[in-house]
Amino acid sequence: MQLNYHEMIEEWKRLLGTGLSEDSALFDWTTLGSLKSRDQISRARLMAKEDGVWASEGSLSALMQLANERGLSFVAKSTFRDGDLYKNGDCLAELEGPTSWILALERPWINAGSFVSGIATTTRNFVRKAHSVLPDVRILSTRKTLPGYRALSLHAVLCGGGHPHRISLGAGILIKENHVVAAGGIREAVEQTRSMAPHGLKIEVEVRSLDELNLAIEARADCVLLDNFKSCDVQSALVRTREFRNLFVEVSGGVRLDTLGDFLFPGVHGISVGSLTHSVRSVDWSLLVDL
Amino acid sequence: MQLNYHEMIEEWKRLLGTGLSEDSALFDWTTLGSLKSRDQISRARLMAKEDGVWASEGSLSALMQLANERGLSFVAKSTFRDGDLYKNGDCLAELEGPTSWILALERPWINAGSFVSGIATTTRNFVRKAHSVLPDVRILSTRKTLPGYRALSLHAVLCGGGHPHRISLGAGILIKENHVVAAGGIREAVEQTRSMAPHGLKIEVEVRSLDELNLAIEARADCVLLDNFKSCDVQSALVRTREFRNLFVEVSGGVRLDTLGDFLFPGVHGISVGSLTHSVRSVDWSLLVDL
Amino acid sequence: MQLNYHEMIEEWKRLLGTGLSEDSALFDWTTLGSLKSRDQISRARLMAKEDGVWASEGSLSALMQLANERGLSFVAKSTFRDGDLYKNGDCLAELEGPTSWILALERPWINAGSFVSGIATTTRNFVRKAHSVLPDVRILSTRKTLPGYRALSLHAVLCGGGHPHRISLGAGILIKENHVVAAGGIREAVEQTRSMAPHGLKIEVEVRSLDELNLAIEARADCVLLDNFKSCDVQSALVRTREFRNLFVEVSGGVRLDTLGDFLFPGVHGISVGSLTHSVRSVDWSLLVDL
Amino acid sequence: MQLNYHEMIEEWKRLLGTGLSEDSALFDWTTLGSLKSRDQISRARLMAKEDGVWASEGSLSALMQLANERGLSFVAKSTFRDGDLYKNGDCLAELEGPTSWILALERPWINAGSFVSGIATTTRNFVRKAHSVLPDVRILSTRKTLPGYRALSLHAVLCGGGHPHRISLGAGILIKENHVVAAGGIREAVEQTRSMAPHGLKIEVEVRSLDELNLAIEARADCVLLDNFKSCDVQSALVRTREFRNLFVEVSGGVRLDTLGDFLFPGVHGISVGSLTHSVRSVDWSLLVDL
Amino acid sequence: MQLNYHEMIEEWKRLLGTGLSEDSALFDWTTLGSLKSRDQISRARLMAKEDGVWASEGSLSALMQLANERGLSFVAKSTFRDGDLYKNGDCLAELEGPTSWILALERPWINAGSFVSGIATTTRNFVRKAHSVLPDVRILSTRKTLPGYRALSLHAVLCGGGHPHRISLGAGILIKENHVVAAGGIREAVEQTRSMAPHGLKIEVEVRSLDELNLAIEARADCVLLDNFKSCDVQSALVRTREFRNLFVEVSGGVRLDTLGDFLFPGVHGISVGSLTHSVRSVDWSLLVDL
Amino acid sequence: MQLNYHEMIEEWKRLLGTGLSEDSALFDWTTLGSLKSRDQISRARLMAKEDGVWASEGSLSALMQLANERGLSFVAKSTFRDGDLYKNGDCLAELEGPTSWILALERPWINAGSFVSGIATTTRNFVRKAHSVLPDVRILSTRKTLPGYRALSLHAVLCGGGHPHRISLGAGILIKENHVVAAGGIREAVEQTRSMAPHGLKIEVEVRSLDELNLAIEARADCVLLDNFKSCDVQSALVRTREFRNLFVEVSGGVRLDTLGDFLFPGVHGISVGSLTHSVRSVDWSLLVDL
Repeated sequence: MQLNYHEMIEEWKRLLGTGLSEDSALFDWTTLGSLKSRDQISRARLMAKEDGVWASEGSLSALMQLANERGLSFVAKSTFRDGDLYKNGDCLAELEGPTSWILALERPWINAGSFVSGIATTTRNFVRKAHSVLPDVRILSTRKTLPGYRALSLHAVLCGGGHPHRISLGAGILIKENHVVAAGGIREAVEQTRSMAPHGLKIEVEVRSLDELNLAIEARADCVLLDNFKSCDVQSALVRTREFRNLFVEVSGGVRLDTLGDFLFPGVHGISVGSLTHSVRSVDWSLLVDL
Repeated sequence: MQLNYHEMIEEWKRLLGTGLSEDSALFDWTTLGSLKSRDQISRARLMAKEDGVWASEGSLSALMQLANERGLSFVAKSTFRDGDLYKNGDCLAELEGPTSWILALERPWINAGSFVSGIATTTRNFVRKAHSVLPDVRILSTRKTLPGYRALSLHAVLCGGGHPHRISLGAGILIKENHVVAAGGIREAVEQTRSMAPHGLKIEVEVRSLDELNLAIEARADCVLLDNFKSCDVQSALVRTREFRNLFVEVSGGVRLDTLGDFLFPGVHGISVGSLTHSVRSVDWSLLVDL
Repeated sequence: MQLNYHEMIEEWKRLLGTGLSEDSALFDWTTLGSLKSRDQISRARLMAKEDGVWASEGSLSALMQLANERGLSFVAKSTFRDGDLYKNGDCLAELEGPTSWILALERPWINAGSFVSGIATTTRNFVRKAHSVLPDVRILSTRKTLPGYRALSLHAVLCGGGHPHRISLGAGILIKENHVVAAGGIREAVEQTRSMAPHGLKIEVEVRSLDELNLAIEARADCVLLDNFKSCDVQSALVRTREFRNLFVEVSGGVRLDTLGDFLFPGVHGISVGSLTHSVRSVDWSLLVDL
Repeated sequence: MQLNYHEMIEEWKRLLGTGLSEDSALFDWTTLGSLKSRDQISRARLMAKEDGVWASEGSLSALMQLANERGLSFVAKSTFRDGDLYKNGDCLAELEGPTSWILALERPWINAGSFVSGIATTTRNFVRKAHSVLPDVRILSTRKTLPGYRALSLHAVLCGGGHPHRISLGAGILIKENHVVAAGGIREAVEQTRSMAPHGLKIEVEVRSLDELNLAIEARADCVLLDNFKSCDVQSALVRTREFRNLFVEVSGGVRLDTLGDFLFPGVHGISVGSLTHSVRSVDWSLLVDL
Repeated sequence: MQLNYHEMIEEWKRLLGTGLSEDSALFDWTTLGSLKSRDQISRARLMAKEDGVWASEGSLSALMQLANERGLSFVAKSTFRDGDLYKNGDCLAELEGPTSWILALERPWINAGSFVSGIATTTRNFVRKAHSVLPDVRILSTRKTLPGYRALSLHAVLCGGGHPHRISLGAGILIKENHVVAAGGIREAVEQTRSMAPHGLKIEVEVRSLDELNLAIEARADCVLLDNFKSCDVQSALVRTREFRNLFVEVSGGVRLDTLGDFLFPGVHGISVGSLTHSVRSVDWSLLVDL
Repeated sequence: MQLNYHEMIEEWKRLLGTGLSEDSALFDWTTLGSLKSRDQISRARLMAKEDGVWASEGSLSALMQLANERGLSFVAKSTFRDGDLYKNGDCLAELEGPTSWILALERPWINAGSFVSGIATTTRNFVRKAHSVLPDVRILSTRKTLPGYRALSLHAVLCGGGHPHRISLGAGILIKENHVVAAGGIREAVEQTRSMAPHGLKIEVEVRSLDELNLAIEARADCVLLDNFKSCDVQSALVRTREFRNLFVEVSGGVRLDTLGDFLFPGVHGISVGSLTHSVRSVDWSLLVDL
């Protein structure tokens, strides 16, 4: 359900460190002016203000590591694990440590964490709806992630029950229209790519018509992506693809939660949804500090 | 209307470089397999698929610099300048250069650019609605920006006609509930902060009631933030604040485009909207490559 | 009296790590040749060889963190806190750990620390002299800090009892001659800047004559900087500025410790001294190692 | 007379880039507010306000490279080369390019450049005085340089006619009291170090008495450093060292310009002066911008 | 035949920049002492002293970019393209530019380039021998690459006519003994991994016996790796695997050039050779500088 | 026998961190799919599969630090110290910690460690053979190290009983043919370099004939390098050099283990061997994981 935990912590540390630096936490005049002592200690609780999916387990270790690197005594803990559902009003995490540190980390932590949980929560909504019809279909993310957020975005998709598509250009093959044109045809693109690429990568071809679908199948593509097919055209395509037991069939193109049901036919193995990662609604969290 | 252009290009370069690296563009098997020659040259056009506000002028220079650093001959140009409105169907930018480079930059560029234009476009919608009632009121962003995106987010807010709040903890003072508790009162918090902070920073106090508002005024705050005040309470507060010609009055708390009108009273100088930067709907763009 | 302690440690770590790297501590042939065992442990004391102001509290945590990251058992402690005065002969800090580590850190630590204490000590001399006449006047630093030393320099100024001016171009507004010329006048510069900049920043205008002072006041500047005014001209200016209770009056221009008294008039709120940070006399420290 | 020019430019770029970043040049509200157009072009001249030694030739290329990386058209030129003397009133360099860029680089450039010229100018004063008595004696810098400034500081010493001591712990051997104690004696320290260190490094021993000097000579040290010897003791030492034609004799210990003459005896090959780099008085420069 | 050229240049820049920095090129005393003028220009030719395969085309652009970033006028060109064979005595590349720059880049360039060509040359020897028997068999590299050299090593393998295996843990699946033990069996490992991993990755299973081979086939692995099979056992395995048209069969385990022939049977699709990248003999090159 | 241990750990951390990152350990699908629980703990032993010299002591601390930075509980220990000999079958190190971490670090650790031990092992073979004839002769490494591996390579040479030559251009002087041509003669090159370079560096001259040897001696070089001299010519040269007690005599030029004996004459102080670091055969190690 998650990516490698230890390396995920490094991602969180990178992002939270960036956030602290962007925020000039060094010069937090308001806090410096308000605290009676630099050594003041506080507790704080992260509260959910709506239902959602937790995906920030690694951020707690990251905050503790960042504090440790600064010589601070600081604890962050949670009873939730990545992928868990939480309810409005739940206490998602508890912190204890220097007040100035808690006030400095508040914004970067919530900014990043509520974005990540936003992805997980939306993914879960898609997955739940899809699985109610087709229990094995994959809700797939895309490469439409913000620079700097590829790993955390895919992690969040996994937490929400979805699956990543190729994680990068180097970790998968997807022949699109441009590649077909460049190579001189679907068959040429498939064969040339197959002859060069690592043998462990399947070859997926994006098709825009039944004719292209047939060409892709003839070229022995491992996967096909039906791009912007209408619901009825998906059904026509499935008549053809069902002959090929090992062929992975993916549907794509502006699928929304309310149109998802139009594509949930047996024989569809995956539905990719760009908006999962490119238009994220952050979940609502609040940090209560007990001074 | 914009931040410093030369430094903005550095921001774009950092993000686009991160995107290329995350995407393992070095190992783009699909493109490597499809292109007949490494030296193939293409043109491409970035097309708008809905109306919006352009905020990616710096990205064109950034792409040219990144190409230049790789020894490539590449041109990116646009007739739009930051802050310009564009229409569905407009050609936003034109590229010409090595095909493999264009196919590599496509996703990171659109991922970042459509996010930034998404912020600018939404900001503009708020600004237009606000100014139709109160021509001088500021639509304000907050510190709720994704780590790594503080500068580009504020830039986008400016492109949309909004204003940034303090850009970081070090560049402004905002005394919140936690600070008041820590200091032992609004007056104490204001006085202590004033005595320590740079003299060029105004002191803003977040208040949650008319009583707190009075305390802030008595403490000679320069700005007050009416936090989560209902529309009628804002009006009550304004009765009091209008006596103080130099007092900046900000309204905040879950303001949406459809509730914005509830707070547009004379005497309100700014309305801050966290969702401008924390829940961004990317605009829809598409890259047409002429191979 | 200090900037945020945890982030200050990060600054110290960055600088001390740079120092170790520049010094090729990896290849310290002299120490490698002299020590009988790699595991040899030593104590060392940092001794003051003249009076001064301590400002390196964060360096002790930084040294311990750097040691910890290298898997070393090492302790650094001090009875002094930032801002404390020390006397010639005082033991400023005690170290205990691997001898080779102590001999490697000696030079970068003293190089950075004695520079920082040098700023604090000189600042304190200015502050003491100024406060003997005007107890509330601020001794102000400027942006004349060495690249890489902005934060530590401002920290040292605070330790010495001074105040920072704006910490960066983004965290304050100071309209100088160039800006006035560019904008077409003091009023234009003030108004245009006010309309764009964050509402929490005051507007300070540098003036070189009483005429310019009047223009700045008319433009409703929040602060004025009397640049290179002679003592008598400062007095004339104060006649005018005293009418404006909220106007902050700063004096600047080659002020030295021996000329400071010429500008200490009631109504002067701050005196900025570039040499505090641009021409630093390091204090004299020595590390005694007990092998 | 200089270090490798191309790599020196990298040093300047690193420092000037750090300065721009620390200064939040991206958010220069004052300039953004004042300029009528982002595209405004200006000329500027760097003026000397006192005599000095130029050591910032590399900074001009660095500024042009930094501008180039930002897509700017910008030229910086000078008729001075590193090591040249300049007079009060001289125009040290001319710039032409975007006004906002010139106003952004002004402070970081002058902050770094006037520090470096400060070192070169003071070094030259020592060298001139020393050479008037002993034409071949070396004025030597030490490892007392600020972290981040090792290379530029040594470059400035060379520009002023001085010589660097070892550039780092890895590039020379200097056996001090601590090493002698650790090794169990001067002879042991010399022999052990010689057996391990690269054969191309000479062995220098710091001595505090004539007895130690004799031990160092017996141990076949290549160089001796007379540490904190009084003038008369230096003379006594020279009686001994003159027997050894290849022995390099260095004098060290709080030497000031006014006490330099006390140590200028034939047989002294070098005098090291820590204050050259640890307590730098920046030279006075001013940037005139023709808007 | 190559990875993405523009990103490859970035790799070369990173490595050559590291080399220049490690070599303290800034302080190249020998060159500084020998050159009569800093502005001296030279030509240089890179000469092959034995036959080999060129794989350093990107290094020429990288050197020009690094020079450009230092403000130097410098040209590097070659008539060879990556993958070309060259003969002993061939001039591989020509340089023209500042002498001090050429003398500084010489060692880092040759150190990196002769390593990369060493990989390409050895790979080609394997490929030529393998293809003389089995024209379609792949010579495969492994993940046994030096940290920092993954991309350049794989590039060199491609230049020599070989193929990369998975480029990283994230870009392929290879179930080894440890994974089988952890999952509780081959079938369990295959199924669990298939259910989580991206759909575009094939599943390869490392087997050590015919029994394990059968289990992998039953679990519907896409690829099998016959690990440390003797020649006769490979033949036995092929009897089984030939039934499965889509199954990729890889042979691995200490294969050397002189034992390669023992595994070249029809039905073997790939032979992986760790030593290609983990024990590299650099080719012999020499730089002739015409001063 | 080793470089500074604490800084060596930093080198190991840099390289191992690079390896983890290049390997996309975050997305290790195979391990993620196989492990039953993220919290699974394992032990592992690093086994030698041939004799060799241990040089990776610092890597154990580095692995523990990297684990610690990721919030993991992990121990790595060894009974071997750097420079120790080990035998085929020895257990070189033991690990205990999270299984997913052990499987992620396996390849980067072995890739780097077996390279470093490969250098140490080969160096030791040279040293043992050389010392059997000439007990005091130095086996010298060169600057022919891979970018990024200068420090670890020299460390390995020390572990094998060899000596580094100058560690960088800044830490020694070696006048080669190009410098002689540039300066106009051996004498000129020596004198000019001596006048500029730090006094603690000896001057070594590379000579290609007895005539050049004489010129170098006349110019009072401290060291001479007999480049590509035949065995008999070395003997002739030694007749001349033996007159100069302090002259260091180095032999260089394609020396292999089987030709080493041709140069082991009294009066030869060092023999440099480029292949020690430029053509490294990694030693054979295997990690046994007890799941």
